Amino acid sequence: MIEDSQTGNLPEFVGTAIGDTVGIVIANLDENLRQELALAPQFKSIGMVSARIGGGTHAMAADAAVKATNAEIARIELCRDTKGGAGHGISVIFASADVTDSRKAVEIMLQELEDCFRNVYTCEAGHVEIHYTARASQALSKAFNAPEGKAFGITVGAPAAVGMLMADAAMKAGNVEMNKYASSTRGTAFTNEVIISFSGDAAAVKQSLSAARQAGLAVLRNMGHNPQPMTSRA
Amino acid sequence: MIEDSQTGNLPEFVGTAIGDTVGIVIANLDENLRQELALAPQFKSIGMVSARIGGGTHAMAADAAVKATNAEIARIELCRDTKGGAGHGISVIFASADVTDSRKAVEIMLQELEDCFRNVYTCEAGHVEIHYTARASQALSKAFNAPEGKAFGITVGAPAAVGMLMADAAMKAGNVEMNKYASSTRGTAFTNEVIISFSGDAAAVKQSLSAARQAGLAVLRNMGHNPQPMTSRA
Amino acid sequence: MIEDSQTGNLPEFVGTAIGDTVGIVIANLDENLRQELALAPQFKSIGMVSARIGGGTHAMAADAAVKATNAEIARIELCRDTKGGAGHGISVIFASADVTDSRKAVEIMLQELEDCFRNVYTCEAGHVEIHYTARASQALSKAFNAPEGKAFGITVGAPAAVGMLMADAAMKAGNVEMNKYASSTRGTAFTNEVIISFSGDAAAVKQSLSAARQAGLAVLRNMGHNPQPMTSRA
Repeated sequence: MIEDSQTGNLPEFVGTAIGDTVGIVIANLDENLRQELALAPQFKSIGMVSARIGGGTHAMAADAAVKATNAEIARIELCRDTKGGAGHGISVIFASADVTDSRKAVEIMLQELEDCFRNVYTCEAGHVEIHYTARASQALSKAFNAPEGKAFGITVGAPAAVGMLMADAAMKAGNVEMNKYASSTRGTAFTNEVIISFSGDAAAVKQSLSAARQAGLAVLRNMGHNPQPMTSRA
Repeated sequence: MIEDSQTGNLPEFVGTAIGDTVGIVIANLDENLRQELALAPQFKSIGMVSARIGGGTHAMAADAAVKATNAEIARIELCRDTKGGAGHGISVIFASADVTDSRKAVEIMLQELEDCFRNVYTCEAGHVEIHYTARASQALSKAFNAPEGKAFGITVGAPAAVGMLMADAAMKAGNVEMNKYASSTRGTAFTNEVIISFSGDAAAVKQSLSAARQAGLAVLRNMGHNPQPMTSRA
Repeated sequence: MIEDSQTGNLPEFVGTAIGDTVGIVIANLDENLRQELALAPQFKSIGMVSARIGGGTHAMAADAAVKATNAEIARIELCRDTKGGAGHGISVIFASADVTDSRKAVEIMLQELEDCFRNVYTCEAGHVEIHYTARASQALSKAFNAPEGKAFGITVGAPAAVGMLMADAAMKAGNVEMNKYASSTRGTAFTNEVIISFSGDAAAVKQSLSAARQAGLAVLRNMGHNPQPMTSRA
């Protein structure tokens, strides 16, 4: 029995999105917590978005949010989650002098997520993800070593052999520069994935992502599975 | 087909409890294992309690056990578990010169657990936990930096943004001192949580815990979930 | 709707096996990825086997594969997986100058797995595994500190207390030398397990494994569960 008063009035709550994602704001973060996050002195407010299922998706959405607001990325933390799946959960913390900027960043991030999950394909055995932005910014730089301002892509495949074949296909398909390589014991939270990120001309990055997706989906299908795009209706 | 002889006679088995918890004792631990655990020379016996679902719960129960027995805490190890959930599993190892002390510690810990889970609320998206003791001892000192002898509390929230809002509410509600801050990449086993511990006057600690629980449950409810207390009947 | 053309033609795909295992080969691995794996210059080809559920199983199967081929072990990486269970997933990367050697290694590994899972027992609360080889080779040396050429065994139990009792039973049952001890925070990917490996005379290793299995299954049964051998039919 939940009374209305228990759900009706939480000013810190901003909203939810696909992937068991929740966004909150704290206008004047407690001083002890500010120190733990090593916030710069001018930042009194934070916005925080956490998801049970996510990683590249949320880094992409956070990147769009910082490009459109005065909030900055204070911290991006990956965890081992996906609710029994093979991949990550994630938290993104925005910081700002004025809480309206953090709130705006959280709102934009939540709005962007549906689109960022458009190229996430899941099945019982694993998943395949590709992510693209025409211009990488602060969030992708922090989380995936993106050179800011350049066209940028991420490929993710699970189980890890799927991700390796995607990585190989991506690097061979286009004239791109690899910015990050992550596997179960390096650069992930012990997920069953191989993840790479790369940058280059927009056309080359897109070509590499397309080749990676095709390779990844082909492995999952050869395993006997039928990976489907993940949407909030699922 | 399990024959009686297969289950009927295992002197090391002590019992079970909520959270897929099992307790055992080993009267005279093998020398190689004693070295791995770095047991003091006088300790020949261990008790060990492992759980698929637990963390603060089991540290609290272990604390009650060491206060009531001659067993000591040899090791507390957190793992990433909760059977697909967002949090920890845990193992507690007691050591003693006489096996009866380790057995007694395991028995007390198993008995205490039902009570320690009283303030664990779960739903499909995450969980909210608060834990209180009037006087922290060895287990809470080892696992959560508790100052021994003081009133002490722990807050846990998942997904991590839930835990952050709980932490902020706790620190603002009472005149307490924060003893530990843990998040997905610091001090946890890559869980999707923010955890803090704090100490102070009993009334202040309780006030902070109450505020944290209210904040955490409100976020989960605003996400559209109905978190329920976890009991062994569930 | 999957068209035939999407699944019919992926030369890199080798096959699948129990434990959501998939095996692939890449004849001429991209140079960036070769550097990330620190492959020796003569190795242009890799084979890669990844599993959602596995660990000792796959190290054993990989050991059989390297003994029978010219492929070498380039990397073995454990992750936290088992699809919500208490244990590991794993990836094994073979390297060879000629892709036929990597392909052969992957094929042998996939064939061996059914047999390697013969002594994996699972139930809702955890699992018990024992693994034996008469002669350890490169894969077991890399992943479990096996002395090459000797009879060698591995015990795994979850929740961790099950594994501890198995380890104690194994070390007491036979005149074996312990080669590795791993627990939630040391040597595992934060799994809820205790794992040991040991070597010695074949008879002693077998005796220790048998005692460990009996102890582990007895704990799970005393917990009220009925652990069953894991097979590809399950």
